[in-house]
Amino acid sequence: MKFYVMTLFPQMIMEGLNTSMIGRALESEKISLEAVDIRQFSENKHKKVDDYPYGGGPGMVMQAQPIYEAYSSIKNKIGKKPRVVYLTPWGNVFRQEMAEDFAKEEELVFLCGHYEGVDERVLEEIVTDYVSIGDYVLTGGELASMVMIDSIARLIPGVLNNDDSATYESFHHNLLEHPQYSRPKEWRGREVPEVLLSGHHQKIEDWKLEQSLLRTMEYRPDLLENCLLTDKERDRLNKNQNIKKKCRKILAKNDEM
Amino acid sequence: MKFYVMTLFPQMIMEGLNTSMIGRALESEKISLEAVDIRQFSENKHKKVDDYPYGGGPGMVMQAQPIYEAYSSIKNKIGKKPRVVYLTPWGNVFRQEMAEDFAKEEELVFLCGHYEGVDERVLEEIVTDYVSIGDYVLTGGELASMVMIDSIARLIPGVLNNDDSATYESFHHNLLEHPQYSRPKEWRGREVPEVLLSGHHQKIEDWKLEQSLLRTMEYRPDLLENCLLTDKERDRLNKNQNIKKKCRKILAKNDEM
Repeated sequence: MKFYVMTLFPQMIMEGLNTSMIGRALESEKISLEAVDIRQFSENKHKKVDDYPYGGGPGMVMQAQPIYEAYSSIKNKIGKKPRVVYLTPWGNVFRQEMAEDFAKEEELVFLCGHYEGVDERVLEEIVTDYVSIGDYVLTGGELASMVMIDSIARLIPGVLNNDDSATYESFHHNLLEHPQYSRPKEWRGREVPEVLLSGHHQKIEDWKLEQSLLRTMEYRPDLLENCLLTDKERDRLNKNQNIKKKCRKILAKNDEM
Repeated sequence: MKFYVMTLFPQMIMEGLNTSMIGRALESEKISLEAVDIRQFSENKHKKVDDYPYGGGPGMVMQAQPIYEAYSSIKNKIGKKPRVVYLTPWGNVFRQEMAEDFAKEEELVFLCGHYEGVDERVLEEIVTDYVSIGDYVLTGGELASMVMIDSIARLIPGVLNNDDSATYESFHHNLLEHPQYSRPKEWRGREVPEVLLSGHHQKIEDWKLEQSLLRTMEYRPDLLENCLLTDKERDRLNKNQNIKKKCRKILAKNDEM
């Protein structure tokens, strides 16, 4: 997959994404990433990219022309109209399902706004997807596009290796991950739960499922609305009276579905 | 405000945040940022920071000891127990109100997880706030902490200058921003809305408010649930029959409050 990011801060994109798993995926060419410097496409002799907003108001607005030319250069390179994501607080809120959808594309273009905003007309002309990564204000679209690229790239086959474990999957059928423990068995007086040291595979799996359910009930009950357990998990829950009692509501709901 | 980020990828944090407004705020020492390399605190001779999870399962778990020592070094430097944010999908979902709350702190510490997760015991020992930036899976906590730092830092007095305009404020009393336009008046056959060129201050303000309301109704009706208009805005809406009709529900709701 090829990612293109139209930005006033190309260095931030390239340096912020060249470490860890995404850095490795770039090196091994599983994905490619190009930060396209909007400023280079300004027809203004001072390479200006913004101007005052019509109708007054604070701040500056990024103008249509340089953005449109940056877009055109990418479109020409690809040879077709790409999907273009504009990062904005009024976009659809980014979720894992959206990442899965974007991961099917061959190319994906991001437009990072700054200052007061971007001239509406260029958005109408080129943007296909308005996306927000959450209900908070950022200084620009760069970090938001990096977040989206990280989240989408890891879904592309070959990007994750075994150590990274595709199963760092909170949101696996809408349950949060159970707690994790590693060596040593005792640390500052805190012990690893005995069941994890038991070697009893079935009990361990039961404990993990129970902990996932309990944690989800406690911290993100909203996720349970769309939680769909596998047959194996339902069986496991039904066999364990302790969990069954605690998770009665979830089971009832799943039985209805 | 002093930000500390405990991470396995200190370079990613420093390079990803040294541009634009945050970069300027760092230069002018309005804020400070230190990426604390967890690996440097490993007591293991190979500087190992992770190990297999107890109870089996894929991936590796970050161990308690190096994280705890990294935390202790920060705590000692500050001279008190700081607020420690752990970025995790099961955290409270980050929102603008939370950014405002964090912006009151003198120091803020972030812990970035990686691999399958972090040993639960060190989380119990040091973490004060579990936060998620959204319902999507990332390869680690680095980008999420950068997003939070960007969002919090811009609320600190002196970080934004006039050009950046503190009023890039979508979420200003829960309304989205109106569309923005800048020079030229006509671009690729698309014209700037006439009212913005009228010079009629009152009409322009009415238009902006109407557009904000319409955009919010169209894209993020959920935000209107908590939308509280100012008296001035209510007056303006009541005087304009066209907007009043479209926004009847919002007005009715505000009248009740």
